Amino acid sequence: MLIVGERINSTRPKVAQALRARDAAFIQDEARRQVAAGAQMLDVNAGASLTTEPEDLVWLVGTVQGATDVPLCLDSPRPEALRKAVEVHRGVPLVNSITGERARQEAVLPVVAESGASVVALVMGEAGMPRTAEDRLSVAADIVRAVEKAGVPLARVYFDPVISALATDHTQGREVLEAVARIRREFPSAHVIAGLSNIGFGLPSRRLLNHTFLVMLMAAGLDAVIADPTTEGFPETVAAAEALLGQDEFCMAYISRCRPR
Amino acid sequence: MLIVGERINSTRPKVAQALRARDAAFIQDEARRQVAAGAQMLDVNAGASLTTEPEDLVWLVGTVQGATDVPLCLDSPRPEALRKAVEVHRGVPLVNSITGERARQEAVLPVVAESGASVVALVMGEAGMPRTAEDRLSVAADIVRAVEKAGVPLARVYFDPVISALATDHTQGREVLEAVARIRREFPSAHVIAGLSNIGFGLPSRRLLNHTFLVMLMAAGLDAVIADPTTEGFPETVAAAEALLGQDEFCMAYISRCRPR
Repeated sequence: MLIVGERINSTRPKVAQALRARDAAFIQDEARRQVAAGAQMLDVNAGASLTTEPEDLVWLVGTVQGATDVPLCLDSPRPEALRKAVEVHRGVPLVNSITGERARQEAVLPVVAESGASVVALVMGEAGMPRTAEDRLSVAADIVRAVEKAGVPLARVYFDPVISALATDHTQGREVLEAVARIRREFPSAHVIAGLSNIGFGLPSRRLLNHTFLVMLMAAGLDAVIADPTTEGFPETVAAAEALLGQDEFCMAYISRCRPR
Repeated sequence: MLIVGERINSTRPKVAQALRARDAAFIQDEARRQVAAGAQMLDVNAGASLTTEPEDLVWLVGTVQGATDVPLCLDSPRPEALRKAVEVHRGVPLVNSITGERARQEAVLPVVAESGASVVALVMGEAGMPRTAEDRLSVAADIVRAVEKAGVPLARVYFDPVISALATDHTQGREVLEAVARIRREFPSAHVIAGLSNIGFGLPSRRLLNHTFLVMLMAAGLDAVIADPTTEGFPETVAAAEALLGQDEFCMAYISRCRPR
């Protein structure tokens, strides 16, 4: 399970402030804490600052890579910002993201293909947010055609099923789970990634919902997650799920994570 | 999701003591507490007292039904004890259990057929504990033939996939999940029930493992569980899983269970 730490995101006011002030110490502390909690990759997002996003994202990449060795998930809807961030990233990044939209694919996929990066593909087409598993599969199939045409192997694609709030549509959990299982079955060399936090929007006990949904998604075939690994109970939940899914021989990782201290 | 409370079991020393002393107040308190925590059925087991089991089980049935209105899960490997308990039970009980063994089926199924009871069927054959999903499906298919021959409709059968310890075989979680999904697919009118507590035997943080496995089992199609509903976090976990699986319109039950108090 690839854990991508989500905390360095400028929609968080403290991160936005650190970004404006070029407060490297704050950003680097966020990076180190997430890696210590189990993150194997860190998402960096500077999208809150519309006019300065490209240079802000470049600064984030250099700042975070000055503090940790993990690769980064370069998170922006803007091809220009992604291109510049890929250029300065040391090692192989995960580009976040393309969608089913042609214009975005045409702008981003060449960068992905040339750099050897992996790419997050939101299964969201020209029609906007998907509702059913079928909607998601149909966009995923379009994306498969586009990435193959661009010369990006499916093993470098991380499909994101696009999780929306359960409170506004109580079928969304079920539809996303079915979409994940079917994407894994139909495109076995591709990965499936998800951001958890939308599912519980507007509901109480969001941490319980996030962790419960994560466990179901892992059982359906999710192999990467964008989340806050410093959340109480998160690393233990992932370790328990991996052990139960037979991914942890002799339960060694689980025991080491959960034994009484 | 049918929640069957497991606390009135004579393998618990306090229950064994209350049973010997015919301490109705203790047993009735256990019954009421479990119902208050969300149990819709209560398991009663007097198996620790080998010589007096039938009359002990009959006493438990009367005592528990004197305190609560929920039906009981009559839990014994001994056909004689089950027959006597079914006779005194008010309403329709769940008989726990038959297995793939012919002798046990022949002794218990007539009681189930005549009384209109439901029955737990452990997918464990003459060869003992199952290991793979395939083992489990093969015993389930045998049991289907036997219950149909006995005139018990599949809608009254609760298959139990027989969970063994992850610590001794790290593939058991995965095999049980596959078995549950396949039993649901191949015998859609039957139910699937499980006792959780074996999975974490010998491992730390057993509550975390139990709840994580329960969530996965529910996503695979489990619709009944034998568990201690008074365990911290249990009712909330079930409510979250039901909401995420689309079984809770407008998330009303989840909100009512988990809202801040």
